[in-house]
Amino acid sequence: MAQYSICKIRGSSQNYYKTNEQNLINNEIMNDRYGNLISSLAEVNEKKIVLLVMDGLGDCNNDGKGTSLQRARTPNMDKLAVRGILGLSHPVAPAVTPGSGPGHLGLFGYDPLIYKVGRGVLSALGIDFPLQKGDIAARLNFCTLDNDGNVTDRRAGRISTEKNESVVKKINKEIAPPGGLEVFFQTVSEHRALMVIRGKGLDDDVPDTDPQKTGVPPLEPDRSDYSGSSTAKTVKKILDQLRDILHDEKQTNFVLARGFAMLPNWPDFEERYKLKPAAVAGYPMYRGVSRLVGIPVFSEPKSGKEVCDEVVKAMKDHTFVFGHYKYTDKTGEDGDADAKAAAIEEVDKALPVILENEPDVLIITGDHSTPAAIKAHSWHPVPLLMKVPYPVGGHSDQFNEITCRQGELGTIYAREIIPLAMAHTLKLAKYGA
Amino acid sequence: MAQYSICKIRGSSQNYYKTNEQNLINNEIMNDRYGNLISSLAEVNEKKIVLLVMDGLGDCNNDGKGTSLQRARTPNMDKLAVRGILGLSHPVAPAVTPGSGPGHLGLFGYDPLIYKVGRGVLSALGIDFPLQKGDIAARLNFCTLDNDGNVTDRRAGRISTEKNESVVKKINKEIAPPGGLEVFFQTVSEHRALMVIRGKGLDDDVPDTDPQKTGVPPLEPDRSDYSGSSTAKTVKKILDQLRDILHDEKQTNFVLARGFAMLPNWPDFEERYKLKPAAVAGYPMYRGVSRLVGIPVFSEPKSGKEVCDEVVKAMKDHTFVFGHYKYTDKTGEDGDADAKAAAIEEVDKALPVILENEPDVLIITGDHSTPAAIKAHSWHPVPLLMKVPYPVGGHSDQFNEITCRQGELGTIYAREIIPLAMAHTLKLAKYGA
Repeated sequence: MAQYSICKIRGSSQNYYKTNEQNLINNEIMNDRYGNLISSLAEVNEKKIVLLVMDGLGDCNNDGKGTSLQRARTPNMDKLAVRGILGLSHPVAPAVTPGSGPGHLGLFGYDPLIYKVGRGVLSALGIDFPLQKGDIAARLNFCTLDNDGNVTDRRAGRISTEKNESVVKKINKEIAPPGGLEVFFQTVSEHRALMVIRGKGLDDDVPDTDPQKTGVPPLEPDRSDYSGSSTAKTVKKILDQLRDILHDEKQTNFVLARGFAMLPNWPDFEERYKLKPAAVAGYPMYRGVSRLVGIPVFSEPKSGKEVCDEVVKAMKDHTFVFGHYKYTDKTGEDGDADAKAAAIEEVDKALPVILENEPDVLIITGDHSTPAAIKAHSWHPVPLLMKVPYPVGGHSDQFNEITCRQGELGTIYAREIIPLAMAHTLKLAKYGA
Repeated sequence: MAQYSICKIRGSSQNYYKTNEQNLINNEIMNDRYGNLISSLAEVNEKKIVLLVMDGLGDCNNDGKGTSLQRARTPNMDKLAVRGILGLSHPVAPAVTPGSGPGHLGLFGYDPLIYKVGRGVLSALGIDFPLQKGDIAARLNFCTLDNDGNVTDRRAGRISTEKNESVVKKINKEIAPPGGLEVFFQTVSEHRALMVIRGKGLDDDVPDTDPQKTGVPPLEPDRSDYSGSSTAKTVKKILDQLRDILHDEKQTNFVLARGFAMLPNWPDFEERYKLKPAAVAGYPMYRGVSRLVGIPVFSEPKSGKEVCDEVVKAMKDHTFVFGHYKYTDKTGEDGDADAKAAAIEEVDKALPVILENEPDVLIITGDHSTPAAIKAHSWHPVPLLMKVPYPVGGHSDQFNEITCRQGELGTIYAREIIPLAMAHTLKLAKYGA
């Protein structure tokens, strides 16, 4: 059995089990029985699959006026519902609210409980930082220390993004990385920043330094109750420099680091499914999570019409096109159910151009729910509509949470959606003779 | 890696994998991916969850008059069905009929296929025996041996409980436990009794002595095809004493022992969910299984009205209250569908006091089905009604097996119910960024 150390990334809400050589993570991937089965059955053909994601599509009904999908006028999707198949999906697991990373990994067929991404990597993805294999990324919060070195504010008074940018500029100017390494700092927003260390032989076995409370000093990355990786000692040197550089700052006189992580070594989307993939996504996080599984970015449109037009262009030379539309999530997070319904209508109106180009399978769904009543991501299973060649049918003539509940697919896991699309495009061989 | 031995408890219908230090059981708990995920996401707030269990609630429809829930007049639950969410749940797994222990463990979110309780411990719980950590409990059957020492009746002619009590009294008077140990015997009912051994350094790696047939002698606990634990040798000494003490009895001249077990070392309910729990339960088994996961007992009412009143009292200082009502199961086991419907109506009538106290989530369900037509527990998935803040809705205006089938939740596992309640009370952090 491979040697490994189990280490909890403190300050993150999950436990990650890690090892220097990621043996355990690879063991987990070996245990991805369903994903590996599908991969083993995958066959190439020219049939085309389009996955159109309306971010945060799912909703609940708190005011008695119905969900956003029920409110929206969606003649094109409703027409598809008659001849397509409906269902609901769990992005991660029942009752679990996914972040954007796990939400999309689920849709891409990578079980988010097996394929875990560290917070540092997600932060890099979210600002389009060109992370390379072997880089270590960590999420930083600027913080305030008192004269005794104790944390008085873990978010440095939630400084403005402009202030953040000026401090980051100062750091990048003055930092002198230890021998042979490069270090990059980049503003995320408000008190949030990204640190990336590049060089040879780094590992991500570095614990969080955020003590998660005030009145105590930040934790040391090389403290003795952790593995004592050499990268932890390097991080300590960099943080000591930051302490000097930031010494004269009033609010932002230090940083707290969380979620040290490297780009994971996962099965490539194209290899896994024998599909030729392309991503059409206007926002960094979704381009980032696409690249994470090896889906190259085709273009970066934002409006419903632009997204659908670009999907059509990408269909020419690709057998799998992922199109991402953001405003259903934004309006949900704003708590504006009517605006969310309008965003859905925008996509519905733009849909015919895709339909005219006749993808063999068209999947319309979300990466999670963002109910206007909650103003945040939620755990509600996500409505799913698939235009397929071989439906059983017998649904309603509408696409919404209620009709999906009674649909042909029932409530499934999101990681089953691409396999279903591959089945319908006859890209999955028979299992056994 | 810790050393362990795998041993099947013969004569029980399940396999238990045990070790002296329960290492393997702890490994299984490490593999409780869903439970551990939920635990890692749990956050504290003051919102309140009530789990009201009507024991054996589910039913089937054999006489064409409908299930007990369909027969019962339940205006309060029906009102909740309009704005709440409905579903069905499997306590253990499809087609599997749960005992009371696994049924409740499922509801408490402890997968009964991972969190297994030995028969000895369940026997102790069922008669309110104050089992301590480190005690060994075993279920005894009085039996009859012939002059050659062969078993002629494995249940000693199903003697009366009174006879059992007088024999147990005699045993407790005459038994002389081996050095440093205490041994307790207690009547359960008819031919069934409980034996508890208390002392230092005991283990539960002791095989059953019930040969499961007549015409052969009882098995020895220290037989050579087992691990040869020192406790097995102690048990042998105690059984030899019993043979002497019971020598002159006609029917009950020996015992057969099954399910040697210790209190398990499980994650505590309060730690696992960051909920402050209380149990309101009038019967020993349900208090016992509550204590088993660390839910303290608040009070012991029995009628529907008393249970609801006590739930309300417990809500003051607790964020999770489990209320248990027994008569739906009793009437089901009696085969009396009308009495079962009346029992349901008793709870429905008492419900308003809970509703007036506005729990943030109210769960109304059973721990298993007990169809009157079967007069026993069954495998039928259990109706589930949840009053929640963020429903999708679109149900019927009735609460019964048929409407639940078309409900928002579909058919889920019982272990997902508390996670759903935690999601609806915003007690679960987002998974991943």
